[in-house]
Amino acid sequence: MIKNSFNLIIGQSGGATAVINASLVGAVQAALADARIGGIFGMLYGIEGLLKEELIDLRRQPNQVWSQLLNTPSAALGTCRYKLQEGDPERAVELLRRYDVHYMLYIGGNDSADTAHQLTLAAQHAGYELQTISVPKTIDNDLPFTDHCPGYGSAARFLALATMDSSMNTISIPSHYPVKVIETMGRDAGWLAASSALGKRDEHDPPHIILIPEKPFNAERFLQQVEEVYQRLGYVIIVASETIRDEKGQALGAAGQVGTDAFQHPLLSGAAQYLVELVERRLKLRARFDKPGDLQRMASNSISRTDRDEAYLVGQMGVMALLAGENDKMVTLVRHMDGGYSCTTGLVELAQVANAQRLMPGEYLNADKTMVTQAFYDYALPLIGDPLPQYPTLEKIGIRQ
Amino acid sequence: MIKNSFNLIIGQSGGATAVINASLVGAVQAALADARIGGIFGMLYGIEGLLKEELIDLRRQPNQVWSQLLNTPSAALGTCRYKLQEGDPERAVELLRRYDVHYMLYIGGNDSADTAHQLTLAAQHAGYELQTISVPKTIDNDLPFTDHCPGYGSAARFLALATMDSSMNTISIPSHYPVKVIETMGRDAGWLAASSALGKRDEHDPPHIILIPEKPFNAERFLQQVEEVYQRLGYVIIVASETIRDEKGQALGAAGQVGTDAFQHPLLSGAAQYLVELVERRLKLRARFDKPGDLQRMASNSISRTDRDEAYLVGQMGVMALLAGENDKMVTLVRHMDGGYSCTTGLVELAQVANAQRLMPGEYLNADKTMVTQAFYDYALPLIGDPLPQYPTLEKIGIRQ
Repeated sequence: MIKNSFNLIIGQSGGATAVINASLVGAVQAALADARIGGIFGMLYGIEGLLKEELIDLRRQPNQVWSQLLNTPSAALGTCRYKLQEGDPERAVELLRRYDVHYMLYIGGNDSADTAHQLTLAAQHAGYELQTISVPKTIDNDLPFTDHCPGYGSAARFLALATMDSSMNTISIPSHYPVKVIETMGRDAGWLAASSALGKRDEHDPPHIILIPEKPFNAERFLQQVEEVYQRLGYVIIVASETIRDEKGQALGAAGQVGTDAFQHPLLSGAAQYLVELVERRLKLRARFDKPGDLQRMASNSISRTDRDEAYLVGQMGVMALLAGENDKMVTLVRHMDGGYSCTTGLVELAQVANAQRLMPGEYLNADKTMVTQAFYDYALPLIGDPLPQYPTLEKIGIRQ
Repeated sequence: MIKNSFNLIIGQSGGATAVINASLVGAVQAALADARIGGIFGMLYGIEGLLKEELIDLRRQPNQVWSQLLNTPSAALGTCRYKLQEGDPERAVELLRRYDVHYMLYIGGNDSADTAHQLTLAAQHAGYELQTISVPKTIDNDLPFTDHCPGYGSAARFLALATMDSSMNTISIPSHYPVKVIETMGRDAGWLAASSALGKRDEHDPPHIILIPEKPFNAERFLQQVEEVYQRLGYVIIVASETIRDEKGQALGAAGQVGTDAFQHPLLSGAAQYLVELVERRLKLRARFDKPGDLQRMASNSISRTDRDEAYLVGQMGVMALLAGENDKMVTLVRHMDGGYSCTTGLVELAQVANAQRLMPGEYLNADKTMVTQAFYDYALPLIGDPLPQYPTLEKIGIRQ
């Protein structure tokens, strides 16, 4: 008898996003709809769950859970940041064989692509028929070969709106805390910090200075720029990646740079805290910081519909790729601009993706790399979904006496 | 000829909120609709603007600005945190006389009520007919005599949702950063920190520990509680007011307690940063923090409709009170629970409000004051508007082999 259906296993890996569940739902609904898929299994906490045999049956979940998960932030399967150890790929393949799994879908970022690739190699070595497809996700937007990464659009929307809203407080009372620093995530790339400018309509609008990891931080140049904006507007909004480094390559606020604690242990401070102290000490301007932290990857009320729909699409197309016989590849998003923005998907070899990263290209940054260009707006605005609000201001109409 | 209309001046004061403009719009629209009001003037940056004669004409603004401002966070007039100096009240009254202003509406918190009260006294002393009404606003919810304060419902909604969403990240990967601290505002009262629990449906849900300024912080007791939750769930979500103090009354992370910087200056750290370092050092658990900062007072997509409607109402009723001949009073919100939640307004003497504050009552807190009670849910849930989402989870259904 020729076997006509195969079991599929799905995992989520790396930092969660507000729409990574949409990719899971896209994959599961595509699998449920196709008779060539037999069992649909989920790894709990990514590859760690597979290695520990912590697996669940996704076919027997209550049906309404999938539509609910579509708008639920975070990874419903749980996720991991686990680097495969010696013997792990072989053990994983052995377990896949035990569960008769021939299709594997792994939703994640760069490291997860590497994990999926290693499993492909181990399966080939063991002579076990396994197809692996990786589905992209990362708020950091640093995966190569894809126009952008699912998860980024929602995080970008959050940061653009957060910068607009939080700055409104500074603008309402500039004399109180004239300098505000907003700290973003983003690993080695400035994509998230840059997205804070998406609500900026003119030069006066916040943010005024963006500090990205692609550009080494120079304190004197920074202070000069803060002073210049302060003289001009009376307040300064700065957005800084938590990963910016000085010209020696040391993270801002790293051990030693900040000082020692009461027990003489070296202190660690965040980049924003460091910048606030620098501005207060050197410019004698009151400053404070917002650090949205995990909220930027998770905020349920900043989900970009475009991002969510694309996250669903890449999950769905991941299953389609498996059914089409593809192996050892990552799904990519391909932008089309004819008659407005739209995306289709493509595929790229995992070996090309694994552990590579895409930094911001020069054309998206101004000469001193502290502000984005129109090219960046053209690139990023379609990703954040609905238009951002435009806040009205009162006109300074004097009183006729 | 008997004068049959009087000029009105309106100011916004203290920390802005996501709905303080709704109070301005409520007041302006009530004033525009009543022929007994002549000029409608706005102070730029509160009482500071009056003292500097930085006034604008609100009657001659484009009409559509009022409906737009209804959903615009922050104070469109600008605000201030200015303590009246000797001679200021007399000078303010002199200026009001010059502009023939007999009605003053001041939208603000405790300190603003004090400012309004001092102007009443100065006007009485100068024999100038001035009526002042204060309109309450503060995210801190610490004004006495009012059931709650406009601005609190939206900030509470933001914090409840932020705690749910950001915690989803911890839950998706508890092994990575098992401990999260979320830092809130709130001055001397725990109302904002407490609101983080409004999305908590059962004991396992975040937050697990709330640290409020009403209760002195004891490091050993805190660490014991963190350890207990960690052993039980594998992760711990802590919400801490930025203003918590230790048993000696010293702010957590205050100078000296933290250590010295590279130049031997005493370092200041926030409460959250301090707690993260404490947990990492003593419990050897990885921890990090979110500090939403000004976003909690400003987030446009967390505005509570109830809060916005009530902010409009108190602005409107402030003008009604002036027209009814009231003076030297603050508008209050009065809760009714017959047939569901609703609010009407009342009035209280400014002298009773000024510089007083309302801390959280014991009935809203559990025995050790680290979690809220059902009475708090009954009090606060109606204020945050639409129901919070309830996130689904996948069922741990094993695989039939």
